[in-house]
Amino acid sequence: MGRPIVRLKDIADRTGFSVNTVSLALRDSPRIPADTRQLIRDAAEALNYLPNHIAKSLVSRETRTIGLVLTSITNPILTRVAQAIELRLAEKGYLTLFATSNGDAQEEKKVIEMFRSRQVDGMLIYPRSHRELDHIRRVRLAGHRVVLLAGDPDADVDVVSMDTRQGSYKAARHLIERGHRRIGLIDGGQQRGNLEKREGYLRALAEAGIADDAVLHAEPGTHSVMAGHAAMAELMARGNRMTAVLAATDSMALGALRWAKENGLQVPGDMAIVGFDNIEFAEHAATPITSVDYAVDTVTELAVDRLIELIQAGDGLPGARVTLIEPDLVVRESSSGS
Amino acid sequence: MGRPIVRLKDIADRTGFSVNTVSLALRDSPRIPADTRQLIRDAAEALNYLPNHIAKSLVSRETRTIGLVLTSITNPILTRVAQAIELRLAEKGYLTLFATSNGDAQEEKKVIEMFRSRQVDGMLIYPRSHRELDHIRRVRLAGHRVVLLAGDPDADVDVVSMDTRQGSYKAARHLIERGHRRIGLIDGGQQRGNLEKREGYLRALAEAGIADDAVLHAEPGTHSVMAGHAAMAELMARGNRMTAVLAATDSMALGALRWAKENGLQVPGDMAIVGFDNIEFAEHAATPITSVDYAVDTVTELAVDRLIELIQAGDGLPGARVTLIEPDLVVRESSSGS
Repeated sequence: MGRPIVRLKDIADRTGFSVNTVSLALRDSPRIPADTRQLIRDAAEALNYLPNHIAKSLVSRETRTIGLVLTSITNPILTRVAQAIELRLAEKGYLTLFATSNGDAQEEKKVIEMFRSRQVDGMLIYPRSHRELDHIRRVRLAGHRVVLLAGDPDADVDVVSMDTRQGSYKAARHLIERGHRRIGLIDGGQQRGNLEKREGYLRALAEAGIADDAVLHAEPGTHSVMAGHAAMAELMARGNRMTAVLAATDSMALGALRWAKENGLQVPGDMAIVGFDNIEFAEHAATPITSVDYAVDTVTELAVDRLIELIQAGDGLPGARVTLIEPDLVVRESSSGS
Repeated sequence: MGRPIVRLKDIADRTGFSVNTVSLALRDSPRIPADTRQLIRDAAEALNYLPNHIAKSLVSRETRTIGLVLTSITNPILTRVAQAIELRLAEKGYLTLFATSNGDAQEEKKVIEMFRSRQVDGMLIYPRSHRELDHIRRVRLAGHRVVLLAGDPDADVDVVSMDTRQGSYKAARHLIERGHRRIGLIDGGQQRGNLEKREGYLRALAEAGIADDAVLHAEPGTHSVMAGHAAMAELMARGNRMTAVLAATDSMALGALRWAKENGLQVPGDMAIVGFDNIEFAEHAATPITSVDYAVDTVTELAVDRLIELIQAGDGLPGARVTLIEPDLVVRESSSGS
C-alpha cells in the first residue's frame, strides 16, 4: 500500500553507523557515546522512524493497550462509561482502543479477534447477549484478560456490572408504592436474551400481588427516543389503561414523555414515567425524569482495577469474580410531582 | 505477562507435521491434501491459534483497519458520525478502531502515534484544534493516509467537513429575519482556536448592521447541557436584554431551554433558541429545537470514500482536497412558534 516503513537500516545508511549501533543507540545504551546516540536519534526523527512497537511487545508481551468493546457507540450511558474507563486507564498508563459490535454476534466475535490479534493486554466487554458468552469464555481460557461490564454471573468470566435486575425491581416498587397497579414496561434487550430488567419488574409486581399482564409490555428493537415514542403509542393503542411506564433507557423514557405531551397527558398526573441510566438529558428534561442511576464511577473503578489485577497476575488464571453493584433510584418530577 | 501465544511449532508438535506443512495448510495450499489441511486446521482451532496478523500485515502492508480519532466519545453528534463511519467502512471490508483525545493536544498526538504503531491503513481525525495541525501534516507527509473531519482548509491535509461557518451564518440570519437584534452566542470551541461558529454569527450581524456586543457572548469550557444552562444564567445575569440565543451545540441549547423554563421565560416568545447538530434529543425536546443540521450521511460517505481513494493511490501522495458541506437549518418551535 506504499506506506514507507522506516527501518533501522535506513537510519544506518543515513548516519553511516551499523544497524547494531543504531539499535543500541535508540535503546539508549551506555555502550554508545552520548553524542552518537543524539545524532542517531535526530536522524531517526528526521526519517519519521517509528520504533517497532509490535516487535517490542512480542518480547515484553505487553502493549499497554486495553480494548473496550461497546454494543453501541451512540448509547449515552455506554459512552459515559467508556470515557470514564479511558481516563482511569490513562492514569494507570494504559491507552484505550474502542470498537463496537452494534449488537451483532458476528461483529462482536470479529472485534474481539481484532483486539487479540493486536495483542491488547486485556479487554473490557459489554457483551451483546448477557447469556451467550461461550466465545468470550474461550478467549479467557486462552489466557486473555477479560472483564465483562454486563453478563451472566454464572458464565465463569469476570463481571463488574450494575445489578439491573435490582434496579428494575426498585423502580417498579417505587411506582407500586405510589399507588400504581397498571404499570407498563418498555424493554429493548429481550430479543438478545437480556431479561434482567423484565425479571426485576415482574418480581416487584408479583410481591405486590399484581398479575403480569403481557399487554403492558412493548419491546422495540432499539433504545432511541423515537423507539420509546413508538412503543408508548403502541401500548396506549392497546387500550390498557396504563397509569405508569418503566422504560429500559432514559432515551426511551424521553420518547414516552414526548408522546404524553403530544397527546395531552399530564406527567406524572395522568402518566408516571421512570427511565434507566440517569443520563444528563433525562435529568434536565422539561419534566425531569425519575431514573435508575448507573454508578459510572464505581463500575469504572472496580472494572479497571480488576482488569489490571488480572494482567498483573502473570501466568496463573485466577478464578472468575463477579461484582454486582446495587443501583440507586433517583426520584424526580416524572413520577412524584404534585 | 503470561499470555500463552500459540505458534506454528505448537501445532506441528501436536499434529506431527512439519512447521512448513502446517504453515502451508493454514494458508490452504493445494500442495497439502485436503484431509491433512482439515486436521491441521482443527488442531489450530483447538489450540486457539491466532494467525499472526501483524506479521502478515508487514508483508502485505495492509491491516484492513482504520483508526478514528474523536475529541470526545460522549458528544452525541460525534458518536453518530462515528457509528455511520464504522458501518460504511465495514461495507468496504475495513474494521474501525476508535480512540479519543479528550480535547487535549498531547493525548491527540499519543493516539495518532498509537494508530501509526499499530499500522492502520488510514486515519479519520476530528482534530481538537482546527488550526494547529502541524503534527497531522507531518504524519501525512510521512506517507500515512489521513482525512480530517474538521479543520483549516489551508492546512494542506485532506478535509471533509460541515461548513460550520456557513451554518452559523444561516442560523443568525434566521433569527435576524424574525426581528431579533440582540442575539446571544454560547460557544465552546474558541479556547481551542475553533472560531468558525463565531465568525459566521458575526458576519450575519455585520451584514444586518448590528454591532458586535461582546457582552452577548459566553464561552463555557464544555458542550454539555449543564454548560449551556450555566452560560445562559451568566448571559442573563449581565442584564443585556437578549431576545434570542445561538448555542454551538444542541446539548447547550437544551441547557438554555431548561434555564428559560425554570425562570419563567416563554420559548420562543420571550427567548428564541437555536442549536447546532440536530441531535435526536433536540428534535424531541419538550419545545423542539431549531438546529443547524449535521449531514451525517454525506460527511461519512465523502470522508470514507476519500480515505479509501488515498489508500488505493499507492506510493504517490495526491494533493490535499478540501470538501465543505453546506448545512441546512431545520426550523422548529424554539425559534418560530406562535
